Amino acid sequence: MQGCLNDKLSMLVDFYELTMSNGYLDSGMGDKIAYFDMFFRKNPDNGGFAIFSGLENVIDYLENLKFSSDDIIFLRKKNLFSDDFIDYLTNFKFSCDVWAVPEGTPIFPNEPIITVRGPIIQAQIIETVLLLNINHQSLIATKANRIVRAAKGRSVMEFGARRAQGYSGALLGARASYIGGCSSTSCTLAEIEYGIPCVGTMAHSWVQCFDSELEAFKQYARIYPGECILLIDTYDTLKSGIKNAIKVFKEEIIPKGFRPKGVRIDSGDISYLSVVVRNILDKEGFYDCKIFASNALDEYVIRDMIIQGTKVDVFGVGENLITSSSSPVFGGVYKLCALEENGEIIPKIKISENVSKITTPCFKELWRLYDKESGKSMADVITLYDETIDDTKPYEIFDPQYTWKRKTIKNFVAKKIKKQIFKSGRKCYKSPDINDIRGYCERQVEMLWDEVKRFENPHSYYVDLSEKLWIEKRKVFSKNHI
Amino acid sequence: MQGCLNDKLSMLVDFYELTMSNGYLDSGMGDKIAYFDMFFRKNPDNGGFAIFSGLENVIDYLENLKFSSDDIIFLRKKNLFSDDFIDYLTNFKFSCDVWAVPEGTPIFPNEPIITVRGPIIQAQIIETVLLLNINHQSLIATKANRIVRAAKGRSVMEFGARRAQGYSGALLGARASYIGGCSSTSCTLAEIEYGIPCVGTMAHSWVQCFDSELEAFKQYARIYPGECILLIDTYDTLKSGIKNAIKVFKEEIIPKGFRPKGVRIDSGDISYLSVVVRNILDKEGFYDCKIFASNALDEYVIRDMIIQGTKVDVFGVGENLITSSSSPVFGGVYKLCALEENGEIIPKIKISENVSKITTPCFKELWRLYDKESGKSMADVITLYDETIDDTKPYEIFDPQYTWKRKTIKNFVAKKIKKQIFKSGRKCYKSPDINDIRGYCERQVEMLWDEVKRFENPHSYYVDLSEKLWIEKRKVFSKNHI
Repeated sequence: MQGCLNDKLSMLVDFYELTMSNGYLDSGMGDKIAYFDMFFRKNPDNGGFAIFSGLENVIDYLENLKFSSDDIIFLRKKNLFSDDFIDYLTNFKFSCDVWAVPEGTPIFPNEPIITVRGPIIQAQIIETVLLLNINHQSLIATKANRIVRAAKGRSVMEFGARRAQGYSGALLGARASYIGGCSSTSCTLAEIEYGIPCVGTMAHSWVQCFDSELEAFKQYARIYPGECILLIDTYDTLKSGIKNAIKVFKEEIIPKGFRPKGVRIDSGDISYLSVVVRNILDKEGFYDCKIFASNALDEYVIRDMIIQGTKVDVFGVGENLITSSSSPVFGGVYKLCALEENGEIIPKIKISENVSKITTPCFKELWRLYDKESGKSMADVITLYDETIDDTKPYEIFDPQYTWKRKTIKNFVAKKIKKQIFKSGRKCYKSPDINDIRGYCERQVEMLWDEVKRFENPHSYYVDLSEKLWIEKRKVFSKNHI
Repeated sequence: MQGCLNDKLSMLVDFYELTMSNGYLDSGMGDKIAYFDMFFRKNPDNGGFAIFSGLENVIDYLENLKFSSDDIIFLRKKNLFSDDFIDYLTNFKFSCDVWAVPEGTPIFPNEPIITVRGPIIQAQIIETVLLLNINHQSLIATKANRIVRAAKGRSVMEFGARRAQGYSGALLGARASYIGGCSSTSCTLAEIEYGIPCVGTMAHSWVQCFDSELEAFKQYARIYPGECILLIDTYDTLKSGIKNAIKVFKEEIIPKGFRPKGVRIDSGDISYLSVVVRNILDKEGFYDCKIFASNALDEYVIRDMIIQGTKVDVFGVGENLITSSSSPVFGGVYKLCALEENGEIIPKIKISENVSKITTPCFKELWRLYDKESGKSMADVITLYDETIDDTKPYEIFDPQYTWKRKTIKNFVAKKIKKQIFKSGRKCYKSPDINDIRGYCERQVEMLWDEVKRFENPHSYYVDLSEKLWIEKRKVFSKNHI
């Protein structure tokens, strides 16, 4: 098998989803309606927020979810599942309601970013693929956004495919990187599948293949005079690379009526080299020739390079982006929060000795409060699903743990930020174009205060519970606490 | 698009592979024979070795590599590629020779673990998928092997799918984990595709769905009396969970003629809880009932738990394994090392100001020297491809950087450890069954000295160059150094 999974995602499921689902049916809960929330507990890299990404791939999965005859044969052989359950899967038809925040939205710990309502078997069985997609892409989009913000307007190219964790790590990682703000990718397939501009020039092997660096540059310039970016560090950046590049620009590019596009540096002290190379290029009149740099970059190195006056114009970021290497896990979870009984919604809680693992019960709504004057996001509030926040009046928010921490918000607009994606199993939402998602993300991040955007020790954005929800949570907790 | 990539891997390529390949053809190098080595520079987690994995997926890719009409249409539209190059891809037929170490082999920095010989266009264009597979799976197999060694004979289950970086991160991560020594996976598809035992019981949602924990356990025991593992930490492990489990084992499992399989703890201080729970189980005569534990485990936590006398029998490891979270990048590279000119092999080098980035030129062979008495691996030696190591005589190895560090090895067996995988584009190797790979890996790791297997500050295993290769490298370096 290659990377082909499209008709196999039904079985990309943790086995206990199947044993539980079979059990639900066997216990007479086949039609039981359950509510599950997806949320996460900690921002990657101890940042102030994360970027929601991966929804489009969850939607694709849910729209196409069915169980093949091969799946059925496999499950039958396990001798664990009832005929009724096998029939259920054979005739599977997704019928849940799904709500989610749009891709590109800044999200915060402990808020429900996806809610699923439907027959418990269905809501349970989709857990693995739902979490996997959102965890992966939100992780990478968040990292990309940090790196892009560090670059302060300079371009960031994603080129980590060779270090990605698997095929979809490369392809969907490129997608998430673009949503987070990268301008391009090295991955050709990402342009074909998602319209993300793919770019690339030469590796050291190109330079090594010719009798001399000069000859290698000449040949490249002859073939790609309009797209000429030369890699200048194969032998020695200053003693050889930049000199040969200048010579070739003058002799091969300019006479043909083109301008040189750039030079790339992939080793050595890039900050220092970029300054020297910039001076040389400028002295020769190549003010518009860009300097591309790569080599173990991330948001911290880029921030420091810029503070130190680097002349790099375009940052190529590989492994540290495509794996989010300094923080490679997005810990999203998917927890039961309510069940319907005789038409009534009964809240459910999971208690834990780890306080941070206690869940918030109930079918809930997620609101974002925006300051009318600055347009900035002030706080998120989680309410019961049928509550309303009246933004014509001052609204008091309070910390759900330290309830004496209170703040009254005035002159604000309150918006529900989740959209309905599926209604009784039918898609009722169209994923925006990826460029629209990317633009939306950029604008939403602009609406966060700078304090929330610090790389280290950011201000904790408020994610509070409404008074009603807070009271309900305490009630359910007391009832279940032993 | 879902995760379906099988007929799209041709375009999972860094764009510069295509621009360079088009350039090679245009520069009259279409038939130029090149040699590329894959090697890596640093063991993950600063360990003493890595485990080679992912070859089977590289073989699948190379066997099936062709360019579809969609690929061709896309490339034509780029207006960058010559008609000759488009024709080349349209009629693409893989014709390279490929050598590699078998999967499951312990590997060390700077040694050629894969060598590709063939037309430079082909050898270049396969770089991304080759590196991606080996980097990903070697990373995970190495991490799995560390965790399994920490567990000292207790079982380790991989269950990270929901935190994997993409679909293939989950599926192929499960494969690599198994090769590294895990005993099972939560990922159902991994059993279907690779025959890896998949297992699973219940999540907290199961317990929450019933009116009481006791009722939830009863129902589960009724449905799966022979496979009954109960999750006992939903409300309170000691005050509630274990008590209800014992009751259900006695009332629902034993009377039916079964034995309880286990209890699972997913939060709290697992080391402490496992000791108390073990005592309770033993007192009730359930000596054979196993304790399963999960919750942010890795090799360090498991090692410490065992030192502290934990009673956990089976460790479930999720995110820290499936992403190798403490060291999530395997930095394998793929470098040109020689070109053929008029039938002669001309060595090629890449020089860098970062000394560790200077490559070793030439078409090379990789040997492992085993001590005849202990059977242990003593050293690896890289030689020119046509050299022989005569193991009937003492053999002096020396550090290629600090050449005064010398050691004479006696009473040893020298084995070439790379196998030929493709000959002129035809596969001439059969991937072993995954259980054979796993067993091979275990035996090979046993042949390493304990000093090399330390988690922290391991002894550096010797990877030396033969005298002839060392002289050749110096010669090529001097010729190219500026």
